[in-house]
Amino acid sequence: MIILGIDPGIAIVGWGVIDYNGMGTKIKPVAFGSITTPSEEKTEDRIKDVYDSLNIIIEKHKPEAVAIEELFFNTNQKTGIIVAEARGCILLSCRQHNLPIFEYTPLQIKQAVVGYGRAQKKQVIDMVTMFLGLREAPKPDDTADALAAAICHAHTGTSRLAEYYNKPTSMAGKIK
Amino acid sequence: MIILGIDPGIAIVGWGVIDYNGMGTKIKPVAFGSITTPSEEKTEDRIKDVYDSLNIIIEKHKPEAVAIEELFFNTNQKTGIIVAEARGCILLSCRQHNLPIFEYTPLQIKQAVVGYGRAQKKQVIDMVTMFLGLREAPKPDDTADALAAAICHAHTGTSRLAEYYNKPTSMAGKIK
Repeated sequence: MIILGIDPGIAIVGWGVIDYNGMGTKIKPVAFGSITTPSEEKTEDRIKDVYDSLNIIIEKHKPEAVAIEELFFNTNQKTGIIVAEARGCILLSCRQHNLPIFEYTPLQIKQAVVGYGRAQKKQVIDMVTMFLGLREAPKPDDTADALAAAICHAHTGTSRLAEYYNKPTSMAGKIK
Repeated sequence: MIILGIDPGIAIVGWGVIDYNGMGTKIKPVAFGSITTPSEEKTEDRIKDVYDSLNIIIEKHKPEAVAIEELFFNTNQKTGIIVAEARGCILLSCRQHNLPIFEYTPLQIKQAVVGYGRAQKKQVIDMVTMFLGLREAPKPDDTADALAAAICHAHTGTSRLAEYYNKPTSMAGKIK
């Protein structure tokens, strides 16, 4: 199964595609990287950049599922809103490509990758590097985080597919 | 000038199109209503509903500018994130149609419509109803709020167009 992991953001969106063929088999890295948008741009231009770039990635690598980090707001509310706006366009792109979307908290991802929910960032990166048999850690950290989300889904996601398809299917929005 | 006002949301997105031909002339209502999405749906389905519906509205009424309420988060962070995700797809739709987007705070909208930044909701609705020569108040309140944003832009926006075009234009997002 080809899994696309995404670490949402606005200045940097990490992404990583892995190939996983079931428990016990090796996870193969397919491609990974980051989408960056300049802060001088208008918000609508930046989120369109993210959306357009993600469309290209999805059409190129044809993932079968998407694993994405859940969003939490902490200090900077204004940045948080823009990141959520960009994340909305990420979800839209995945939905338009009919990809099932699985959301994981940072805690779930650390638990699945390191085996410990409160693991340090460096431990996560080290485990991602090892799991994928990479010579060096993926850069930037956002890319490693995206790959960690994809690995998390490979390790825990099979059982969640039934849960996903039990949710109601899409109905068209009503325009009154 | 045809102006589309939007009150962002996820359960209800208010929208209203007005026609305004300069200071002192009457503002004509063109069309208004709301996009609704069911809470039982998955987030990605709901935001796609909003995006698809807004595309239809824009393609039908061909606005030349968009006025949209700025987002502020208060009590419910989880709802706030979903609303911001939907708002991101609203901005994307407007951007894809090359519409200049103008953001206004609730305070700016009340100031422009009622003449008083701390006006009550009912005062705003009454003024919108009067400005547009409607027999009764637009329903739901989200629709009235969207029309208020459009009226606010009609009254204050001309000077903001230069400001808009002084911002840097879009550059393609880099995929590393």
